[in-house]
Amino acid sequence: MLSKSRLKYIQSLAHKKFREVSPEFIIEGPKMLEEFLVNNPGLINEIYALDKWADDAKNLLRSVDPNKIIPVSEMELEKISLLSTPNQVLALVKKFDPPDGPILKDRFTLVLDNIQDPGNMGTIIRTADWFGIGQIVCSNDSVELYNPKVIQSTMGSILRVRVFYLDLETWIAKQKDIPVFCTALEGKNLFELQPVKEGLMIIGNESKGVRPSIMNAATEKISIPRYGGAESLNAAVAAGIVMAHLRRSC
Amino acid sequence: MLSKSRLKYIQSLAHKKFREVSPEFIIEGPKMLEEFLVNNPGLINEIYALDKWADDAKNLLRSVDPNKIIPVSEMELEKISLLSTPNQVLALVKKFDPPDGPILKDRFTLVLDNIQDPGNMGTIIRTADWFGIGQIVCSNDSVELYNPKVIQSTMGSILRVRVFYLDLETWIAKQKDIPVFCTALEGKNLFELQPVKEGLMIIGNESKGVRPSIMNAATEKISIPRYGGAESLNAAVAAGIVMAHLRRSC
Repeated sequence: MLSKSRLKYIQSLAHKKFREVSPEFIIEGPKMLEEFLVNNPGLINEIYALDKWADDAKNLLRSVDPNKIIPVSEMELEKISLLSTPNQVLALVKKFDPPDGPILKDRFTLVLDNIQDPGNMGTIIRTADWFGIGQIVCSNDSVELYNPKVIQSTMGSILRVRVFYLDLETWIAKQKDIPVFCTALEGKNLFELQPVKEGLMIIGNESKGVRPSIMNAATEKISIPRYGGAESLNAAVAAGIVMAHLRRSC
Repeated sequence: MLSKSRLKYIQSLAHKKFREVSPEFIIEGPKMLEEFLVNNPGLINEIYALDKWADDAKNLLRSVDPNKIIPVSEMELEKISLLSTPNQVLALVKKFDPPDGPILKDRFTLVLDNIQDPGNMGTIIRTADWFGIGQIVCSNDSVELYNPKVIQSTMGSILRVRVFYLDLETWIAKQKDIPVFCTALEGKNLFELQPVKEGLMIIGNESKGVRPSIMNAATEKISIPRYGGAESLNAAVAAGIVMAHLRRSC
């Protein structure tokens, strides 16, 4: 049973201004719940679940204080879900502790300049996780990490990839001891790049690409060769092709 | 000025059952309009535009019968737009003539088994266009081509890539004289594939992958090597990595 005050609070998290001041964020659906219950159950504050799901997931739920599991009806779930089709369960999860800062002993760091589409951001985090790239540095004007569409598109990879938001112009200017690759239309063919062992890889905004002040910090401009008529690639697809190539070349 | 009957008709195209019987589909926004106006203005039946856009685009609009351009107010555009933020202009465009069938003299054909997410489908069409892959064969149960989210995600590439829907099991069983690559979890490392000059490349459903009856037709199973924790890649990202590799290897 969902109280009126909880209903109102959860609904408020659909809006960025309330999300920003909340210590929690929303995850939805069995797949996301499983990722958190298996890997980091301590982050979960409350679970709003249909009985059917709670029953199916009872083994997974053993690590959770029963008081944190609130049974809801389909109608109640519909009221709090941010999905177009609610998917059995929704949970409130503690935001991650703000990390100290990017660690450059990681071999590869992905750098995102003003990515705006939440689906792209989430998909990029998921792809980074697949390729074992453990951290992503984003410009402060990139889409916020806790946007529900970002979180859902990560498919749980948010648990394994550290995502930093910072003043990218200032930060990138300080990175002197590491190769900085940047996607650019006039860049060198990615596939002709000599194998690299480490580096930063900058991917730019969906329509404007990487801004010039950040592009300036690049030690090498690269591009994905084009064979056909499309003007551009989707940012998440481009990031995937670049990450795949960096990984296979090392 | 938008008549009541046109308003009702355009709104009906938000629903699949009405789209299926309509000879037209919707495109939105300056970028899409430009693609169609430059490459195939004859497909455009009607343009519903804010004065501001019509004024900016007047050179582009020279190839269009002025009677086809209907000025609308922001409020009217909001009523017919399927975007969360309407983007200056919406047009009704003739559906493409159903093509005779896939042409296998093309070097590479992408094959999609039951792709369900419209954003993925559109992004895959856009990526195929980038890599000069001119045709895509889809199972009949894949998301429909004229779904507005598919069309918008192609970013105009729908004009250059032929997309076929057919009974994939029957069709794929007949393809005997060409290598058939299929993504599979237990497949061989994509990046160790010998250079290929032609082939079919099968990408599967977002959660279930390629169905066994279609996988059986593969001459080679391939996978994208994983280095990290994610369980899977987004289907459009996986398709992009595969297409990039096939293109660079030939």
